[in-house]
Amino acid sequence: MSAAALIGLDWGTTSCRAYLIGADGAVLERVAGGPGILKVENGAFGAAFDAMTGGWSARLSVVLSGMIGSRQGWREAPYARCPAGADDLVTAMATIDHAGRAIALVPGLSTENDGMPDVMRGEETQIFGALALSGRDGGLFLLPGTHSKWAEVRDGRIVSFRTFMTGEVFAALKDHTILGRLMREGVPDTDGFARGVREGAALGSAGALLNRLFATRTYGLMARLADTALSDYLSGLLVGAEIAEATRQTRSAVTIIATPALAQRYTDALHLLDHDSTLAPDDCVATGHWRIARAAGLC
Amino acid sequence: MSAAALIGLDWGTTSCRAYLIGADGAVLERVAGGPGILKVENGAFGAAFDAMTGGWSARLSVVLSGMIGSRQGWREAPYARCPAGADDLVTAMATIDHAGRAIALVPGLSTENDGMPDVMRGEETQIFGALALSGRDGGLFLLPGTHSKWAEVRDGRIVSFRTFMTGEVFAALKDHTILGRLMREGVPDTDGFARGVREGAALGSAGALLNRLFATRTYGLMARLADTALSDYLSGLLVGAEIAEATRQTRSAVTIIATPALAQRYTDALHLLDHDSTLAPDDCVATGHWRIARAAGLC
Repeated sequence: MSAAALIGLDWGTTSCRAYLIGADGAVLERVAGGPGILKVENGAFGAAFDAMTGGWSARLSVVLSGMIGSRQGWREAPYARCPAGADDLVTAMATIDHAGRAIALVPGLSTENDGMPDVMRGEETQIFGALALSGRDGGLFLLPGTHSKWAEVRDGRIVSFRTFMTGEVFAALKDHTILGRLMREGVPDTDGFARGVREGAALGSAGALLNRLFATRTYGLMARLADTALSDYLSGLLVGAEIAEATRQTRSAVTIIATPALAQRYTDALHLLDHDSTLAPDDCVATGHWRIARAAGLC
Repeated sequence: MSAAALIGLDWGTTSCRAYLIGADGAVLERVAGGPGILKVENGAFGAAFDAMTGGWSARLSVVLSGMIGSRQGWREAPYARCPAGADDLVTAMATIDHAGRAIALVPGLSTENDGMPDVMRGEETQIFGALALSGRDGGLFLLPGTHSKWAEVRDGRIVSFRTFMTGEVFAALKDHTILGRLMREGVPDTDGFARGVREGAALGSAGALLNRLFATRTYGLMARLADTALSDYLSGLLVGAEIAEATRQTRSAVTIIATPALAQRYTDALHLLDHDSTLAPDDCVATGHWRIARAAGLC
């Protein structure tokens, strides 16, 4: 086991995870369940940081990534622009002086597709970690969730990325429209999900989605799907639409960075649509902290 | 002014409107603001009916249309299937015996597109009314709203229709996702709406919508749109996507059946996308009641 060389925090909106990282990039210890930035009151980020990392040496360098670098966080670290490698993130880093200690903040990334600006914060660090762990210097990376991010990496740089609001749209439709009315919770319905994925991927236009969403109701009304399958059908519809668009111009294998349950869902959907995928190791974000800290000469 | 010949009620989920109709189909009197079926407690539909129509002769025939004929209404009138003319609606009518008086319930319509069932209740009566008033026997009819309906009519029959969840999706996204966070109410922003309409109509896939929705946030973050324009942009995005899909295979002029404000919004959007439209007269639903009642020999 190597000596501790770095502290890395993946500090998002709703949760925080802290890592003690060795000189070779290995995770030596982790502290999960820390407060997301929305749970830290009166800007007491320093105290929250101390509470999570108090057991570790105060002489170690520290790298923070995620929404902690947003306007609502500890300090704003302006976005770096795509294409961006680890060096570009280092150039755009912000620093916090905390109790005489310099804490580095990884900037988020911005890009633009067809005139639409897009942004990420925290995912860039996960991607650089997964990339380092894979031994490759390119590929298509998927970080599914409330806001799914799809990023294309070439020659060690994040060339472009796109955000899909899949998870948040699903929750809003399920909880706040008529579509949730007929749904009943049950065991996950694989067939309902698969049907949604295939139908969602086959839709020919944006408007066709506004129409097909209503099938979540009419399939239920007409007993074409069980009430326990409707939620998975709706989820599949959105995930299928997302994947079809995100993979439209590429046949690259997809590297998924996600919790096991969500990763499995997308693995299944990608497989249904004839795409290969691999799963990035847990805690790849810590490898990202280490990779960026090395580029910055911090460890 | 012709003698009263019929009572027609357009009785939906959230409101009810009653009409006293002459032998020539003209509206002689109207009572607006009646309770929608969700506001009628303990199945007291008869009392609600009496309260709304008590001033009119109890000897007149009565036709009801809308969700009053659903499972949650007074009595269920099973759907007639497309293609359907006024005669087909008459064949499928249900009857309620209320205080010795036979009240006719217009059935809803069902159809199927690409394996997806679709349904309407009440809109069919509005369409037959608008059709009768237009003197034509076909066209494309749009009833925008929470659930927009687009119906194609040929030779006096509703051949097919599709539901788009545009209005309800807009409300869910605005009120229950991050997209509402940066929005500020202001005067309607025509440019923001137009930009949304054009971008929504240009989207190439269902998944592209899940991506482009996020522009409602990034345009705000990057100051590309004023905070007072974001709501109209999002609305336009969805309306544009809906119109592009609904008019994909036709250049027919569109007849809009809607309240003035909503009709204006869709008229503007259709115009931006190079489609002609006309507005059906107010109260065309009463003409629909009259048209169906005549086919049924009720007046």
